[in-house]
Amino acid sequence: MNTTTDEIKEFRLSCRECFDHYAKPHLEKWEEQGLVDRDFWQTMGAHGLLGMGVSQALGGQDKSDYRFALALTEEMLAVGMTAPIVISHNDVIASYLNQFASEAQKQRWLPDLCSGRRIAAIAITEPGGGSDSAGMSTQATADGENYVLNGRKAFITNGVNADLFIVAVKTDAGPRGQGISLIVVEKGMAGFSQGEALKKLGWHASDTANLTFDQCVVPKSNLLGRENLGSYYFMTGMTRERLSISTVAVVSAEIMMAETLAYVKQRKAFGQPIGAFQYNRFLLAQLDTQIKVTRSYLNDAIERFNAGSLSLEDAARLKWWATEVQNKVADECLQLHGGSAYMSDSSIGKLWVNSRVQKIYGGTSEIMLEVVSKSMGL
Amino acid sequence: MNTTTDEIKEFRLSCRECFDHYAKPHLEKWEEQGLVDRDFWQTMGAHGLLGMGVSQALGGQDKSDYRFALALTEEMLAVGMTAPIVISHNDVIASYLNQFASEAQKQRWLPDLCSGRRIAAIAITEPGGGSDSAGMSTQATADGENYVLNGRKAFITNGVNADLFIVAVKTDAGPRGQGISLIVVEKGMAGFSQGEALKKLGWHASDTANLTFDQCVVPKSNLLGRENLGSYYFMTGMTRERLSISTVAVVSAEIMMAETLAYVKQRKAFGQPIGAFQYNRFLLAQLDTQIKVTRSYLNDAIERFNAGSLSLEDAARLKWWATEVQNKVADECLQLHGGSAYMSDSSIGKLWVNSRVQKIYGGTSEIMLEVVSKSMGL
Amino acid sequence: MNTTTDEIKEFRLSCRECFDHYAKPHLEKWEEQGLVDRDFWQTMGAHGLLGMGVSQALGGQDKSDYRFALALTEEMLAVGMTAPIVISHNDVIASYLNQFASEAQKQRWLPDLCSGRRIAAIAITEPGGGSDSAGMSTQATADGENYVLNGRKAFITNGVNADLFIVAVKTDAGPRGQGISLIVVEKGMAGFSQGEALKKLGWHASDTANLTFDQCVVPKSNLLGRENLGSYYFMTGMTRERLSISTVAVVSAEIMMAETLAYVKQRKAFGQPIGAFQYNRFLLAQLDTQIKVTRSYLNDAIERFNAGSLSLEDAARLKWWATEVQNKVADECLQLHGGSAYMSDSSIGKLWVNSRVQKIYGGTSEIMLEVVSKSMGL
Amino acid sequence: MNTTTDEIKEFRLSCRECFDHYAKPHLEKWEEQGLVDRDFWQTMGAHGLLGMGVSQALGGQDKSDYRFALALTEEMLAVGMTAPIVISHNDVIASYLNQFASEAQKQRWLPDLCSGRRIAAIAITEPGGGSDSAGMSTQATADGENYVLNGRKAFITNGVNADLFIVAVKTDAGPRGQGISLIVVEKGMAGFSQGEALKKLGWHASDTANLTFDQCVVPKSNLLGRENLGSYYFMTGMTRERLSISTVAVVSAEIMMAETLAYVKQRKAFGQPIGAFQYNRFLLAQLDTQIKVTRSYLNDAIERFNAGSLSLEDAARLKWWATEVQNKVADECLQLHGGSAYMSDSSIGKLWVNSRVQKIYGGTSEIMLEVVSKSMGL
Repeated sequence: MNTTTDEIKEFRLSCRECFDHYAKPHLEKWEEQGLVDRDFWQTMGAHGLLGMGVSQALGGQDKSDYRFALALTEEMLAVGMTAPIVISHNDVIASYLNQFASEAQKQRWLPDLCSGRRIAAIAITEPGGGSDSAGMSTQATADGENYVLNGRKAFITNGVNADLFIVAVKTDAGPRGQGISLIVVEKGMAGFSQGEALKKLGWHASDTANLTFDQCVVPKSNLLGRENLGSYYFMTGMTRERLSISTVAVVSAEIMMAETLAYVKQRKAFGQPIGAFQYNRFLLAQLDTQIKVTRSYLNDAIERFNAGSLSLEDAARLKWWATEVQNKVADECLQLHGGSAYMSDSSIGKLWVNSRVQKIYGGTSEIMLEVVSKSMGL
Repeated sequence: MNTTTDEIKEFRLSCRECFDHYAKPHLEKWEEQGLVDRDFWQTMGAHGLLGMGVSQALGGQDKSDYRFALALTEEMLAVGMTAPIVISHNDVIASYLNQFASEAQKQRWLPDLCSGRRIAAIAITEPGGGSDSAGMSTQATADGENYVLNGRKAFITNGVNADLFIVAVKTDAGPRGQGISLIVVEKGMAGFSQGEALKKLGWHASDTANLTFDQCVVPKSNLLGRENLGSYYFMTGMTRERLSISTVAVVSAEIMMAETLAYVKQRKAFGQPIGAFQYNRFLLAQLDTQIKVTRSYLNDAIERFNAGSLSLEDAARLKWWATEVQNKVADECLQLHGGSAYMSDSSIGKLWVNSRVQKIYGGTSEIMLEVVSKSMGL
Repeated sequence: MNTTTDEIKEFRLSCRECFDHYAKPHLEKWEEQGLVDRDFWQTMGAHGLLGMGVSQALGGQDKSDYRFALALTEEMLAVGMTAPIVISHNDVIASYLNQFASEAQKQRWLPDLCSGRRIAAIAITEPGGGSDSAGMSTQATADGENYVLNGRKAFITNGVNADLFIVAVKTDAGPRGQGISLIVVEKGMAGFSQGEALKKLGWHASDTANLTFDQCVVPKSNLLGRENLGSYYFMTGMTRERLSISTVAVVSAEIMMAETLAYVKQRKAFGQPIGAFQYNRFLLAQLDTQIKVTRSYLNDAIERFNAGSLSLEDAARLKWWATEVQNKVADECLQLHGGSAYMSDSSIGKLWVNSRVQKIYGGTSEIMLEVVSKSMGL
Repeated sequence: MNTTTDEIKEFRLSCRECFDHYAKPHLEKWEEQGLVDRDFWQTMGAHGLLGMGVSQALGGQDKSDYRFALALTEEMLAVGMTAPIVISHNDVIASYLNQFASEAQKQRWLPDLCSGRRIAAIAITEPGGGSDSAGMSTQATADGENYVLNGRKAFITNGVNADLFIVAVKTDAGPRGQGISLIVVEKGMAGFSQGEALKKLGWHASDTANLTFDQCVVPKSNLLGRENLGSYYFMTGMTRERLSISTVAVVSAEIMMAETLAYVKQRKAFGQPIGAFQYNRFLLAQLDTQIKVTRSYLNDAIERFNAGSLSLEDAARLKWWATEVQNKVADECLQLHGGSAYMSDSSIGKLWVNSRVQKIYGGTSEIMLEVVSKSMGL
């Protein structure tokens, strides 16, 4: 897979221009306030980093090739930028709006999302529900031209900043009641409230919040695609989301390895660089090899994704494995850095704690193994 | 090993009385301020929890049997109290002062340390030095009746609150220069400064700070034991410190297992308690067994410690293994709790992040393996 | 636990006398023929190694303390003797005959089993059944004074040499049909046939065979204990069997470690003993520590066993863990020996391949985890 | 990577024709006699399976593309054929003879090796030396038109059957003495003797033997390439050898997974197929994913190998990782098969025991980690 075409290189320059100048100087502040400043989203839009697969007519970049998303993730993580919030926004656009929205909806929402004037989020998880969408309890009842929503969503990325939420709701009140629909709820709608940014162990600048729908009235024109087909739309969204998380996993692991290699070559103990100790050397060789093996698999997945043939189960395989490797690498790299890595301002410390949630969100590792084993006829 | 003698049971009651009433209500505040209130130390003293092995004549409890320390650790961790600061204080008293201080020094220091009016700390690690004591650079030069200290110490537990620091310094300026001595530096001595509480990934109420000695003048009467015998005194201190860390490891693992068992029995997914899924059941059986295996080994170590026969290498074996198990348990228990465990106020989340530093402080896992393999003739 | 009492030391001398003189010179031949010579069993009997818990009146040794069984296992494995065949014989005597046989049965069978004139085996596993006793299909139908047995048993230790088999059969033909009974089948009974020694990957001198019961007539006086209580009797037998397998696991791991330590200290590569390479040193320190941790847990189990309080689930915990450690140790020790360990006459190679079945027989590791997790309320 | 071109498909048909008819019926016999019949080599030659990269003028197939070697390995392992002996022969031809032999030497040796009339082997390892080529002690001393060889080689694949051995010898007797040369020794040369087939734990039909050179006189015209450049030639040979071993690793893992999947879907316990138990399902999902991840990495390596750009360190990464995965898969698949897998005639049992040596020969895992870490600047 060629990731160094002229077009990709040029795109990387835009990324760097944007992140070096407009993100890097504010990262610490953003982490303290638990939120990226809203105006930074417009800066990203102006640099052409949002809504990559959207047509230029709608304000997008016509760059649906996932290699651009890969480059964007690499550039974000390279400067320590809170990647999940941007990925979530872009994935929502690519997986749900660009693909399943009606022409009228696209006209209404995509230009603002591509410019960064509005921010998008996806709301599936519920407080008591975890990864079990069958247990979903948020309900939408049809009422004339509207739906009336009741229920709660939990741990929603961009939950504070977002203006537009794709909310998964039960719309089928029949005996089996499996029907899930996707309804776009917009900031400020009556009966809709966004909670405070939740304090988390890591990803401090990522605003994660709970949402409440209390007799929230949403016009039927905000229904995405067709009623009760939500589970089918999920498949597209989940495949991309898990590919994105896996991309973060591999790129994070590569960054941690690079930082650690640099560190162990200069840090000394007992008269020699700690990277000269055989135990550390072998450990780093093992981890680095596992990263490279995983990068091969990620590249294959990206090629298949671009060809439209990445299956839900292969995305699940990838997410399970890539996040395992990321966490193993994180743990050992932290160890090699010793006590200073346990300080809050340590880069490796942050990467370690950020890594941990990757095995949980976007479907836990256990859910991945469920999906994979089912696909194996087990 | 009988841990339920009447005397131990009574001691546990004192612990609970103290922690339930005087610690529990303040834990959140202490975590926010990064510091346990100083007056709580006196409360602990009043409950007979400090300086257990010290004679009653000096204000102590005459309870040198390590089973009391075990009970204290269990009770602290049960309420979520920041155990390392208390353990550090008590270990310093037991390992260095009670054992190697002169009678005059004991009279000067022990009563205040047993009552909690003063707090103790041990300062060995240096910014560039990690676990390599040979690379120590803090120097003490004899100058008449005094020593003049220059250098820095890093990541010192109780670094902000402590009044009395046992500081490891080089006193041998000769060609081999291996001689290390232990000198007691007291809060407020000229040329001695204690840094701010460091922000860490976990143990938020444990005040960890850096110390600076800049032409710090300390009377020779503050030398502990004899000059250049520090490395020998370390052996005693390290054995106890590693036993203490291992105790925290095992007890923390037990607590995480209990919390997780309770959780998986009530939390449902896909229509049944998640503890009913075979994968989780087997995982918990494996982890719980490893905890029990490790508890057997800890008990053996405690018996040998009480008999005065726990070797440095056996303490190293125990610390390596117990902290490995603790971290494995922490990681899986967090996973079983899912997304909510990643929130800052989650009990299991805190226990997970607290676990991580246990493989680093008190000598890293790599140092433990060095010690063990050397003892095996390798 | 004191394992060096005078009585135990003396017993060890008998073991060594027996194994050094009468086993060691024949081990190779026994492995080639897939069978220990029958007369060696009488030699063991003469040395007081069989039926240890049986009263002297019945030809036994009055040594029911498990520390003698531990010593016996240690001495057998030390010379490379095929321990499972002896353990199986002794466990059958201790768990089933000595405990549940009637006085008349004891008089009939125990003297010969203690002297080694006859050899005992236990037959539970069936070709299609593995560890699932509920799926057992061998049937005993009452017919006057007799039972008529039909069915097959698989992988029975001592299957060729044994004279007396405790066979688990279904005796309850009712609707629930759970009742299992234990019936003693003797060599040569009509309708009973013992297969050839099976060729296995390891334990080449252990005769393992399949058994067939084709209208096999057994007098009711050969019923052990009461009808339909077999599952209850199993609990005793299984607890002891799993303790025995765990003992073999720990002792084997200790032997492999000792052999490997000796090897790595003399074998050179790149100009130094391979035991001087840090990676190997740390690996050996980790493994040796795990062995010691497991020995602590084994010792605790033995103490509880002797006190009559070792539960089925604690035996299951121990078996799972001890055989895991044994196999990890085996794998790494083989690796450290390099190519020569892959030769059939290599001691470490044999120990490696012998280790593997320990996670399977006596109940697989998965069954152990089932038992443990059930006991945890999962 | 397209592995289903018409040419490859056709080649596979030749493989199957050859192995199904001429190998399969004799496998058991070959395993018993510890040796593949010599005439089978000519059968393989007749089917175009030997000397694939050799020009047709010299009797070869003009198929240097490694995808043919991959197909050959897949077909051999599919029927249970002892792959290493064929791979060794073909790798020797491809890595040493086809590349470094003079035109005259090619004419002398290649036609016979391509037809299977003669069999090739490579002899590097020495009894006391393992993977440490610097410690090599077999010496060749120039004596007029000849070299006189003295020394021993150990564990040589095809050691009994081979007619032509590429032997690594020291030719530089100077002070640094690092020079290694490759000399072709032919069966029957005076002073050269081939030992008996060694009895091994696995790969029973692979004839592995020790070689002795006692004043063995070899004409200088049998020198391969130039004197003292052996270490350089090794790099080519080792890269290919490690790629071959990795190919065996991945293909074996795939076969074990397929066999196990089929087994767990039909084998029942506790009333359901054992493949329906969640623990087994997740385990198989994890293993299968790791196999697929590794296959991606193998494919990348093959593409680079075909392009001439597979580095020694990337081959080392691959060998370390692929053999790790193979052994993990082997161990768990054996476990899932239960007791019957421990019988000598069990397919999974054989694959398990065959897997083990893969981490040892062709350079141990430790050597791989040495190579990789060196390449990382550690």
